Amino acid sequence: MSKLRVQSFSLSLDGYGAGPDQDLDNPLGVGGVGLMGWFFATRVWQRMYGTGDGETGVDNTMAERGFEGIGAWILGRNMFGPVRGPWPDESWKGWWGDEPPYHVPVFVLTHHARPSITMQGGTTFHFVTDGIHAALEQARAAAGGRDVRLGGGVATVRQYLQARLIDELHLAVGPVLLGRGENLYDGLDFPALGYECAETVAGERATHVILRRA
Amino acid sequence: MSKLRVQSFSLSLDGYGAGPDQDLDNPLGVGGVGLMGWFFATRVWQRMYGTGDGETGVDNTMAERGFEGIGAWILGRNMFGPVRGPWPDESWKGWWGDEPPYHVPVFVLTHHARPSITMQGGTTFHFVTDGIHAALEQARAAAGGRDVRLGGGVATVRQYLQARLIDELHLAVGPVLLGRGENLYDGLDFPALGYECAETVAGERATHVILRRA
Repeated sequence: MSKLRVQSFSLSLDGYGAGPDQDLDNPLGVGGVGLMGWFFATRVWQRMYGTGDGETGVDNTMAERGFEGIGAWILGRNMFGPVRGPWPDESWKGWWGDEPPYHVPVFVLTHHARPSITMQGGTTFHFVTDGIHAALEQARAAAGGRDVRLGGGVATVRQYLQARLIDELHLAVGPVLLGRGENLYDGLDFPALGYECAETVAGERATHVILRRA
Repeated sequence: MSKLRVQSFSLSLDGYGAGPDQDLDNPLGVGGVGLMGWFFATRVWQRMYGTGDGETGVDNTMAERGFEGIGAWILGRNMFGPVRGPWPDESWKGWWGDEPPYHVPVFVLTHHARPSITMQGGTTFHFVTDGIHAALEQARAAAGGRDVRLGGGVATVRQYLQARLIDELHLAVGPVLLGRGENLYDGLDFPALGYECAETVAGERATHVILRRA
């Protein structure tokens, strides 16, 4: 069966996946952008958003892997945008411009229904209001046998972890301490949930950790 | 001035420095011994307790560094032994046999006074009942200009962190998830306490992280 995978999920040494006070100016919360240093340097990121060639080392290889064999994505609503509560209008279409980097169907978890949005380059945003299991079912159907990538944010990953639905997590731990924000580990007993560390790989700017359900 | 250093402090990916339910059979708590895998493989450890030669790679170099320039140690009482409350007698002399690996004065934090113990090989255990500042003062005086190493455990390191008394921490993060036990990071805001990541070094069996007060 197709897997549910978390990939290139940036984490601080103290376990934070985002800083506090997320808003339009700080999509990853205050200080959270520091978690992405390893990713910004890669060819993968530079080809999507940058102006340079980017680096092609271990970090880049790990970032590339995150896009291989993916047929659909799931995003938490706070990862899709800074808008909270009912959608005031249809104007917010994600952080990523007219052609988002997904190129497959993306299922956005929300409590507030909204028509699907077809973007350029193969990305369609679907809004799922009936919970994480329903979103996974729809994403699996859309993925056509390929894997589903769970993009985040932290709260969404934690929900799927607690439901034991994630098959594999690739965490990219950077040389950063955050101290506050959204913590991946806080109060979650990963071994009790069935997870173990399958592999660690030293990258140029992050340590890559692969967790799998045993 | 001489520094207060934490060295070779083993930590799980999820931030635990010891498992739950520490006792005579599980000095590092249940599952905690898994944190030490990197250290057991080193020449440093094998020369102290093992039967083999041990490895001489990055992990060993980092372990060696932890003994360089150290003139005294501080240990929490729970690191000294499994005895809790008043000392029933003088029989417990640490986990380390007749010749402990310290070879300098060691100051043990406790609420229960006890005469000093002179061991073979230069280690003397002193019992300090008037708190972490007093222990550091005594250790500094005994160290004669060299650094003081804070051995642990987690609760003791956290106390010294909150008092902003630690100059440098070397954490050895192993490919292990613990889920329960004593967490180093839980509820502590390291950046607010003045700490930042100065360096990370990939070892054979652990990722070495150096934190320093800015």
